[in-house]
Amino acid sequence: MQPFLAHPFDSDRLHEECGIFGVIGVADASSFVALGLHALQHRGQEAGGIVAHDPESGFNSAHRFGYVRDNFTKADVMGTLPGPLAIGHVRYSTAGTKAATAIRDVQPFFGEFHMGGCAIAHNGNITNAAALRRELIERGSIFQSSSDSECIIHLMARSIQRNIPERMKDALRRVEGAFSVIAMTRTKLIGVRDPLGVRPLVMGKVGEGFVLASETCALDIIGAEFIREIEPGEMVVISRGEVETSRPFGPSTGRFCIFEHVYFSRPDSIIGGRSVYETRRQIGVELAREAPIEADLVCGVPDSGTPAAIGFAQESGIPYGLGIIRNQYMGRTFIEPTEQIRNMGVRLKLNVNRSLIAGKRVVLVDDSVVRGTTSRKIKDMILDAGAAEVHFRIASPPTAWPCFYGVDTPDRDKLLAANMTPEEMRDWIGVDSLAFVSLDGLYRAVGEAEGRNKACPQYCDACFSGDYPVAPFDQLERGFRMKSGSETAMNEAAE
Amino acid sequence: MQPFLAHPFDSDRLHEECGIFGVIGVADASSFVALGLHALQHRGQEAGGIVAHDPESGFNSAHRFGYVRDNFTKADVMGTLPGPLAIGHVRYSTAGTKAATAIRDVQPFFGEFHMGGCAIAHNGNITNAAALRRELIERGSIFQSSSDSECIIHLMARSIQRNIPERMKDALRRVEGAFSVIAMTRTKLIGVRDPLGVRPLVMGKVGEGFVLASETCALDIIGAEFIREIEPGEMVVISRGEVETSRPFGPSTGRFCIFEHVYFSRPDSIIGGRSVYETRRQIGVELAREAPIEADLVCGVPDSGTPAAIGFAQESGIPYGLGIIRNQYMGRTFIEPTEQIRNMGVRLKLNVNRSLIAGKRVVLVDDSVVRGTTSRKIKDMILDAGAAEVHFRIASPPTAWPCFYGVDTPDRDKLLAANMTPEEMRDWIGVDSLAFVSLDGLYRAVGEAEGRNKACPQYCDACFSGDYPVAPFDQLERGFRMKSGSETAMNEAAE
Amino acid sequence: MQPFLAHPFDSDRLHEECGIFGVIGVADASSFVALGLHALQHRGQEAGGIVAHDPESGFNSAHRFGYVRDNFTKADVMGTLPGPLAIGHVRYSTAGTKAATAIRDVQPFFGEFHMGGCAIAHNGNITNAAALRRELIERGSIFQSSSDSECIIHLMARSIQRNIPERMKDALRRVEGAFSVIAMTRTKLIGVRDPLGVRPLVMGKVGEGFVLASETCALDIIGAEFIREIEPGEMVVISRGEVETSRPFGPSTGRFCIFEHVYFSRPDSIIGGRSVYETRRQIGVELAREAPIEADLVCGVPDSGTPAAIGFAQESGIPYGLGIIRNQYMGRTFIEPTEQIRNMGVRLKLNVNRSLIAGKRVVLVDDSVVRGTTSRKIKDMILDAGAAEVHFRIASPPTAWPCFYGVDTPDRDKLLAANMTPEEMRDWIGVDSLAFVSLDGLYRAVGEAEGRNKACPQYCDACFSGDYPVAPFDQLERGFRMKSGSETAMNEAAE
Amino acid sequence: MQPFLAHPFDSDRLHEECGIFGVIGVADASSFVALGLHALQHRGQEAGGIVAHDPESGFNSAHRFGYVRDNFTKADVMGTLPGPLAIGHVRYSTAGTKAATAIRDVQPFFGEFHMGGCAIAHNGNITNAAALRRELIERGSIFQSSSDSECIIHLMARSIQRNIPERMKDALRRVEGAFSVIAMTRTKLIGVRDPLGVRPLVMGKVGEGFVLASETCALDIIGAEFIREIEPGEMVVISRGEVETSRPFGPSTGRFCIFEHVYFSRPDSIIGGRSVYETRRQIGVELAREAPIEADLVCGVPDSGTPAAIGFAQESGIPYGLGIIRNQYMGRTFIEPTEQIRNMGVRLKLNVNRSLIAGKRVVLVDDSVVRGTTSRKIKDMILDAGAAEVHFRIASPPTAWPCFYGVDTPDRDKLLAANMTPEEMRDWIGVDSLAFVSLDGLYRAVGEAEGRNKACPQYCDACFSGDYPVAPFDQLERGFRMKSGSETAMNEAAE
Repeated sequence: MQPFLAHPFDSDRLHEECGIFGVIGVADASSFVALGLHALQHRGQEAGGIVAHDPESGFNSAHRFGYVRDNFTKADVMGTLPGPLAIGHVRYSTAGTKAATAIRDVQPFFGEFHMGGCAIAHNGNITNAAALRRELIERGSIFQSSSDSECIIHLMARSIQRNIPERMKDALRRVEGAFSVIAMTRTKLIGVRDPLGVRPLVMGKVGEGFVLASETCALDIIGAEFIREIEPGEMVVISRGEVETSRPFGPSTGRFCIFEHVYFSRPDSIIGGRSVYETRRQIGVELAREAPIEADLVCGVPDSGTPAAIGFAQESGIPYGLGIIRNQYMGRTFIEPTEQIRNMGVRLKLNVNRSLIAGKRVVLVDDSVVRGTTSRKIKDMILDAGAAEVHFRIASPPTAWPCFYGVDTPDRDKLLAANMTPEEMRDWIGVDSLAFVSLDGLYRAVGEAEGRNKACPQYCDACFSGDYPVAPFDQLERGFRMKSGSETAMNEAAE
Repeated sequence: MQPFLAHPFDSDRLHEECGIFGVIGVADASSFVALGLHALQHRGQEAGGIVAHDPESGFNSAHRFGYVRDNFTKADVMGTLPGPLAIGHVRYSTAGTKAATAIRDVQPFFGEFHMGGCAIAHNGNITNAAALRRELIERGSIFQSSSDSECIIHLMARSIQRNIPERMKDALRRVEGAFSVIAMTRTKLIGVRDPLGVRPLVMGKVGEGFVLASETCALDIIGAEFIREIEPGEMVVISRGEVETSRPFGPSTGRFCIFEHVYFSRPDSIIGGRSVYETRRQIGVELAREAPIEADLVCGVPDSGTPAAIGFAQESGIPYGLGIIRNQYMGRTFIEPTEQIRNMGVRLKLNVNRSLIAGKRVVLVDDSVVRGTTSRKIKDMILDAGAAEVHFRIASPPTAWPCFYGVDTPDRDKLLAANMTPEEMRDWIGVDSLAFVSLDGLYRAVGEAEGRNKACPQYCDACFSGDYPVAPFDQLERGFRMKSGSETAMNEAAE
Repeated sequence: MQPFLAHPFDSDRLHEECGIFGVIGVADASSFVALGLHALQHRGQEAGGIVAHDPESGFNSAHRFGYVRDNFTKADVMGTLPGPLAIGHVRYSTAGTKAATAIRDVQPFFGEFHMGGCAIAHNGNITNAAALRRELIERGSIFQSSSDSECIIHLMARSIQRNIPERMKDALRRVEGAFSVIAMTRTKLIGVRDPLGVRPLVMGKVGEGFVLASETCALDIIGAEFIREIEPGEMVVISRGEVETSRPFGPSTGRFCIFEHVYFSRPDSIIGGRSVYETRRQIGVELAREAPIEADLVCGVPDSGTPAAIGFAQESGIPYGLGIIRNQYMGRTFIEPTEQIRNMGVRLKLNVNRSLIAGKRVVLVDDSVVRGTTSRKIKDMILDAGAAEVHFRIASPPTAWPCFYGVDTPDRDKLLAANMTPEEMRDWIGVDSLAFVSLDGLYRAVGEAEGRNKACPQYCDACFSGDYPVAPFDQLERGFRMKSGSETAMNEAAE
Repeated sequence: MQPFLAHPFDSDRLHEECGIFGVIGVADASSFVALGLHALQHRGQEAGGIVAHDPESGFNSAHRFGYVRDNFTKADVMGTLPGPLAIGHVRYSTAGTKAATAIRDVQPFFGEFHMGGCAIAHNGNITNAAALRRELIERGSIFQSSSDSECIIHLMARSIQRNIPERMKDALRRVEGAFSVIAMTRTKLIGVRDPLGVRPLVMGKVGEGFVLASETCALDIIGAEFIREIEPGEMVVISRGEVETSRPFGPSTGRFCIFEHVYFSRPDSIIGGRSVYETRRQIGVELAREAPIEADLVCGVPDSGTPAAIGFAQESGIPYGLGIIRNQYMGRTFIEPTEQIRNMGVRLKLNVNRSLIAGKRVVLVDDSVVRGTTSRKIKDMILDAGAAEVHFRIASPPTAWPCFYGVDTPDRDKLLAANMTPEEMRDWIGVDSLAFVSLDGLYRAVGEAEGRNKACPQYCDACFSGDYPVAPFDQLERGFRMKSGSETAMNEAAE
């Protein structure tokens, strides 16, 4: 099955690899999880899984390829997942992997320990997973999946701690990289974020129950009240209506993923006390200030470019309009008629609003440029429709470095910005002007009035800056070369 | 299978019942039809069908429930539909019908005459279908479907004319109501519109081939050039690269459906020489003039209210924003958790952008009010999110009369505007103010500077005015009571 | 979907084309029909259909490809078929047809007349169907299927009779060939056999209700009591617990299909007052008398050759054994490994019982020889297993003529017996001896002590004798040449 | 999905739980495995799996519920299983298990060790699995399935041996009970039988390749030559065309499962140099000698009672006939009509051949009596059909003890023979006479002229004798009470 795509040009976008959700202390916990995962579907469309626990029937699980709405809405699936405690996971299909994902790779993962079972759902990426896996196999562990996240459950199985939360601490202390984890035992819901808090995790309350989720939009769908974010380096263990907190990794300062604000999170979520929509609109305002242009119309590339386009229009005074209409039914690949249709792939997803565009100087606001192939196609469509000029404005800085913290990125040599100057990119795409918001402008849009603190950056912005807050151990082993100087910096930081 | 819905509150919207598409003179005609139907999917989501003709294998057909993208993208379906000539149809599931649609009801319909086969696809509604069917059965015709459109093919089978286009004229002269029909023989593509031209039909050119389609957006997707609309009362017969035109019903003046501008057609289509998007934006401008209000934010109810919201914001100077975010993955019904979630149905489809709404006086622009139930739910969500005031502005006049020309409408007693004054509606919905664009305002927005010509209205606006341009014969037999005076008017018109 | 096959070498067998079943006056009539069709599955494996009538919901139907057990056992199908009156049909996939069967070709067929609806299920073949179809289309009938049986319903639609049974008489009087028909109106169950009674039809009683079925084994499965056969040329109309009988075609003498005894019918059915099993065993006895042989073991080709093998063993005194074991799970085609497996197709279905066969002189009893390809493969297997000698004994005379009365037969030039003498056949197959039961021997086995009455044969044995009791009109038009002299005979018979 | 059943009264039969098959050194090994598993389908109908290895793409696997013919015949499945080495497994659905089998429980199981991957397929039952599993979990192993067979792969993962065959020896030395195992590494095919050789395993040759299989019938289907049985306690490691043999458990004397001869194995298989068919026929001969009766007809309960029925008829001189006809299309459960049909479940599967049975004294030969419920139903059908007398002859001794070596048996209190004398059983079933073959008679039929050697029985016959050759450790822990005296005997044997 070819998955539906969230963004019309999904194949030319960075992707969050997962969304996670858990709830305890409610009747029919799995139904809440299904709803929560549906709200987090933008974080992973390939597959999803739910594990639930019921005192009578024990742990039950269902893992399925495809959308939440197509699997976890059926009585014959949901009826097998009773009980007051459940967690779930949606995952993205990692582009470029040789083999198709097997259903065994779909989380949550489950392990039976002698003190009882435990299921975990992981969002992020373990940068020393290959090394850990090698060691565990040598010691006699049998991996069920090709997923790096499975290391966590094997490390837990081998811990000598007497209870599951302590075993999880043991395990996660050996793990490097970015992780937000939701886990469950027969009686506890557990949430943890890595010391830098790269990936999001929030806590809410619904009735007498508690909820953990990747984003606040998943609280909204079930009518849960947003309490607070789990802090970087914090573990919460929720049981019998009480929340215990601890800091298994010692004190740490967070460096949240700034790209969550730019693209991954839903515009109606709240991150770090800020509306994602408002941040994106503000990026448009910054762009209009940093890279003003004379034009007749501002359009967003739907849907992710829309808030920044509105901000750009408001700041510049140029009218905003729907120059590109998205096909609501976009989906699978059609059989191409023998007579060539120019840009057929794009036409299936978008149509240009010709009467609006014709003869106009158009500012086109998009969220990012990855390979750049999509930008060229959109430019073609706009020009075919008779635009007088096309000015691209990008709501993020140039994406020049791969992410190793749970985002699927092309290799560096595929990233346009890693291989061209902005002028070269403008010419290659073929537009009249091209501008990216500056890194400082982006920091201002997320509320850092002074911009980026170079000495101690407030966010993980490695994809823009090449400044990796955690050494990508496995990648370095495979030959990845970091920006000169940064390894030293990390070594120092590690001392 | 529960169909996906085009509009988040589709069950409280009027629905176009069909989209039609045909092409001749190209290789792989059926692939073009699949693309064209995909672009017309908003006109019918329940089922679709394609008939193709190939000199070697003759007529072949495929009829399927579900989306075009899920059926007519597969090699095992499309491979059975070879040839240079094909037509197709998408249909909407008529709400409220007792029985589910059978696959036999899915068009195109096909009949084998002794001079060869003929397939037809019909958009519209035959107002004397029940009477015709009764007569045909008495004379020995056997109906395959419960669809009224099948009458056309039986009337053709019994015509004494020697060729199919003449038989089609014979048949359509006996039919009353609204119809745009695309038909095909082994060598000809045929298009007809009823004398009033209530439903749309356009012609385009792709390479050496010709295309007929409900809307221009279906020409765009295959890169076809828009030539012109088929005129009210016109028949075109296309064969060997030539287009013959005739007027089987004599001279007539068109009365196109004005609701196509308001809601049915896609915003990127061109109707009557006008951009649908621009018309809708202009309705927003009219609304801002007719019903101004002091407020902090203008939002559209996604997606159909958006263009009018942009127009309202531009005319009023109030900032435009995305106050309501649509879930891109909306779909089937989830199992409701035991603990009641207020407005769960709505939450699956929309989420309010709380940070943007909170504390603001909000103007909410929607396309229409049918039953009004949806308007209440949206108002609840907006207020829950902390809006200070909610002002509804509706981009159409009050919908007070059912449509009998191919649009699925609730009975009159279910139409809010048929039973309440605007003030009562405002109170029942529970908003601070409520205003509809006036009928004249709507006419101005579609380019009639003088508004509606009462003596001889330029459009069919029966759903707003109760002024039915064709007597709904079957409905009158079943006891439907028209607006007093209008029957007389029609009788006079008929003389 | 590749259908499962009833006989291991089904593709080299003659096939009955249909089984029919109807019941009136019971609760849940459609459940009885499902059971009855299941018992008649050997008469048609490709597809099946059921029409039921319920006073509340009217006529409902379901038509499906595949086995009865896979379709008409599901609550979501059966729940749509309520009511006390239902009929059903299973059909065989006619080999050699260019196009795949469409679901529209699956019976029962339904027609709405002005006095109400009527569904019909037909077993047999109409020998003048092509001519009738041509005439009906010229008069304006639209055919839904490519099935000849549909003529009957169109002839009925055009009859001027005032009730459905009379219309059916009108229609069937115009039809030539072999037909057993079960039909239903809203209140009546109707059964008819053609004047010669070529195809079977029996009547039974279950509780207060009445049953019509192709064979008695379908009465057994529902615990119905066998009343009697419908007579050749008889029509029964069953309503309100009463059976009316009439003879619409005047007096006639039956000529039942003798191959029903040999192969088509189930061994546990009763035909003409005789057990099919016993008749087949008796054929084996005749064979042992007509073509005795010295041997060590008698085996049947499973399953249809088994009863005759038992009879042969009993008459000859040679021990009976299971020399060939049938795979109970036989089914679809497997992917053939690169290294050639000799006779893989056969191995999937049968395995030789090597230890039993090795070194023995084996008598192999099979029901018939059609193309002969299967006989060769079985001989190969038996010899590979080490048999000393192989003697084929065939429980029917040489099949030298095609059937035009509802049995799927290869063209004459594909029938081995039409092109070779018995000696040539023996050599071509490669066995030590080959013998067919004589036509008189077969007649004796079915109870005609004097053998075949040449002047006035008791059965239709056209496939053996070339003596066609009804002229195959359409076939003659297409160029089929009958045995010299037989046309004259028929003309005389018709006078 | 409700599985099809191999025996018409499968739910009242003992069941072999698995069939296994492996091949090395051929192109398209997985296609051979699919064929082999198809031939072994009678040993397990619920699910099947294949693992294949290809030097390019490594290990690939497919596990599916349902028949081999429905899953492993499809190009999209088989195409994912390339390479010259593959193994497979079919499994039976263990009746009475609370939860449905998960796909994770379907073998072969796979483990990645640091020296490479290994897949195993196990037929049998590990009698100390619960204890082993407990220990492994305490040491940090994570089980993927609820299957006891998974212990083997975890024991292997923790072995300190440097190659996989040695690790397998390590693991199997810790395992108690009955096992035939086929395993594969990247380059080796491995076969092992437990010291008693309770479950079968044979070796064959196809072209240059080697085959391991549960039964010889699986060699026949691929045209492989039967070489020999793997001996009790033997391990073979096949690689590069060479077979290495070893005896990891030291010297041992086999005690093969005698029920394989009675029911589990296919009649066309060869076991211990004897034809299964001939053995079963011989059991009929023994029965006729031990329990003669005056009667008119001998019938087998299809299909497993047939060979013994033939033997009984031959020895007694009473004619053999097909008194019970099996429905070839039996399958899923039909919806029961409102009016009760007596014994509907039975009627779906079998029909009595009334004309043959009526008025006769019938000897009915069946393979075994487990719960006895089926015997009663068959007796009812035979009497309903008018039989004068019914005499049951059973081709095995009374089944009075559960099997713990890989056969699914009801608890002891459900076994009719554990709770009644033969006379009570006769009365409870309601037949005129009932006789079981004696244990010595059974031994004679399998070729032991002197009958059973009490001091040192030649076979495992625990289900008849209660004499368990291996102490059922887990069962004893759960409270199972062995026949008094037998524990002592085993303890002695163990010293």
